[in-house]
Amino acid sequence: MRYSSRVRRSTTLADIARLAGVSTSAVSLALNGRVGVSDDTRARIVEIAENLGWHPNAPARALTGRPVAAVGIVLRRPARFLGAEPFYMSFLAGLENQFSKLGSSLLMHIAESPAEEIATIRRWAAERRVDGLVLLDLRVNDERLDVIKYLELPTVVVGDPAHAAGLPAVWTADADAVRAAVHRLSQLGHERLAWVGERSDLAQTRIRTDAFIEACASAGLPTPRILETDSSSASGREATTALLSHARRPTAILFDNDLMAVAALGAARDAGLDVPADVSLVAYDDSILCEVTSPPLSALSHDVHSYGAHVAQLLLREVQAAGSTTSELDATPEFVERGSTGPAPA
Amino acid sequence: MRYSSRVRRSTTLADIARLAGVSTSAVSLALNGRVGVSDDTRARIVEIAENLGWHPNAPARALTGRPVAAVGIVLRRPARFLGAEPFYMSFLAGLENQFSKLGSSLLMHIAESPAEEIATIRRWAAERRVDGLVLLDLRVNDERLDVIKYLELPTVVVGDPAHAAGLPAVWTADADAVRAAVHRLSQLGHERLAWVGERSDLAQTRIRTDAFIEACASAGLPTPRILETDSSSASGREATTALLSHARRPTAILFDNDLMAVAALGAARDAGLDVPADVSLVAYDDSILCEVTSPPLSALSHDVHSYGAHVAQLLLREVQAAGSTTSELDATPEFVERGSTGPAPA
Repeated sequence: MRYSSRVRRSTTLADIARLAGVSTSAVSLALNGRVGVSDDTRARIVEIAENLGWHPNAPARALTGRPVAAVGIVLRRPARFLGAEPFYMSFLAGLENQFSKLGSSLLMHIAESPAEEIATIRRWAAERRVDGLVLLDLRVNDERLDVIKYLELPTVVVGDPAHAAGLPAVWTADADAVRAAVHRLSQLGHERLAWVGERSDLAQTRIRTDAFIEACASAGLPTPRILETDSSSASGREATTALLSHARRPTAILFDNDLMAVAALGAARDAGLDVPADVSLVAYDDSILCEVTSPPLSALSHDVHSYGAHVAQLLLREVQAAGSTTSELDATPEFVERGSTGPAPA
Repeated sequence: MRYSSRVRRSTTLADIARLAGVSTSAVSLALNGRVGVSDDTRARIVEIAENLGWHPNAPARALTGRPVAAVGIVLRRPARFLGAEPFYMSFLAGLENQFSKLGSSLLMHIAESPAEEIATIRRWAAERRVDGLVLLDLRVNDERLDVIKYLELPTVVVGDPAHAAGLPAVWTADADAVRAAVHRLSQLGHERLAWVGERSDLAQTRIRTDAFIEACASAGLPTPRILETDSSSASGREATTALLSHARRPTAILFDNDLMAVAALGAARDAGLDVPADVSLVAYDDSILCEVTSPPLSALSHDVHSYGAHVAQLLLREVQAAGSTTSELDATPEFVERGSTGPAPA
């Protein structure tokens, strides 16, 4: 029942490669959403794979050595934020969609404190409620890592291996993405830039912020303004209002998530400023939210659903053979220019 | 650790009622997001409750007779849709936020077929993976209901008790909400209305569609056009394009979810029509998506996060004392007029 079509199992990467006229490694890169193939080639490979009924988890299905009943994820974010920020459901759905093909479920818990996060992980391990763990919202010196290693619970970290203490990670080259955005804004004549980040104890925010500051310096721009927020819509609005109230206000602002960038549109309007004529706005991560605003938001765009699926694939391998997997780089977020960015005001 | 403040436990509804100068039942209505108190009174009661450190699940905490390690939910929707439609994460976060106070987790599975849904529920029950179940996306003659009753698994149905086969349900008066919207559109001079629904086997879609047809008849309007879709953004766009291509096209369209209504804005624009001058659009359910489009979407607005929390509260009672709970009506979705509705074109 769960394996709805046996035909699918017989399609291999080699079949797809032959029809696409490319190497099997190019097929693998394309279907796993990694860099190294052009967008056109990727689209062609995906189309052929879909026509053949190939499914991303077909290789994982072969790994039937150990059943995976459930994998766990602990989220420590305000519940209302989780409900509003598109990243989470998109990521969870991509993750669980992979596991569901194996009949696996996702155990989710919203924790209110770091101590509760760790207590939950310990309890799940003790009660054997999960076969593996996804560690999201990686922090700098994340205290969960030692606990997980002690418990020997198969885990994949979502975030930079530099902060993962040796656990296998799936990550994105955020510094490269930020550099590309700063480079493009600099090309558009922007000199006074600002970064509105989430909490600086988040590894990804630390990496993005550092890359932003360095990229501004490399481009010969003045030191940018850096603001830290609680990542909520309200704090994004507040930060934007503060930035735009300065006489020498920034002409371009990058936001660490899309909720804050959406709120910034309202703050700019309230300040009597036009986007993008007076100020350009860019969101990190991308979602349908960024596409429907007026103007639509330029964004560092990443297929979050595929990111979740990629994490699931690595975790399945880790559950089958703990300690044997290595970190994998997911596709680099691309700077997608929509209506919220334009030339710097004269 | 999970009970972060013992002080909270001592605050009762009576304390809040005394300070607010209202009855305890008014406090209960206000804090549970039900109808029956004015917005002002509700805001005052919530403020007092928060100042006292009262927490919605404080009463549930007293029910410590049986620990609730995990509750389950099986979703049968395309994973990409779940990641894009704001309802789901908002509902799940509201649900799990309640359970998390008790240290409970949410077990989620995305199923591809009705058979897999039932197999998953059976497996969870057999392996004692969940202490209770939330049944979402209730269908007409839902085959899951008999299985759940046979398994004697404490369950709360999200949907109209008329389709819940005697299981306790938390529901919204969707027919009332639809009638209010049709009434208002009729006041605005609209005569040719259309409904773009999800699959008609969904109980809520059936109820809303029937109410829509009846409300049009009651208002003396011509028989409305009814379209059934797969609820995706693409199908919402397609349905709108089809409706707007008619010579005697509808002047107002109601959509069964917000993703389809957002897509309809694009379809109207592509057809060279202005919203709302040429055609009015209304979304069912509401989310940040509806607020950021241009024009913002009028919607039948419902606090989905609170809806999830309400379901959690009833399920906790049902787990403690199976068979003793009765169905509860959640707040009726209200017609919130934003920029996408206006007077019918002359």
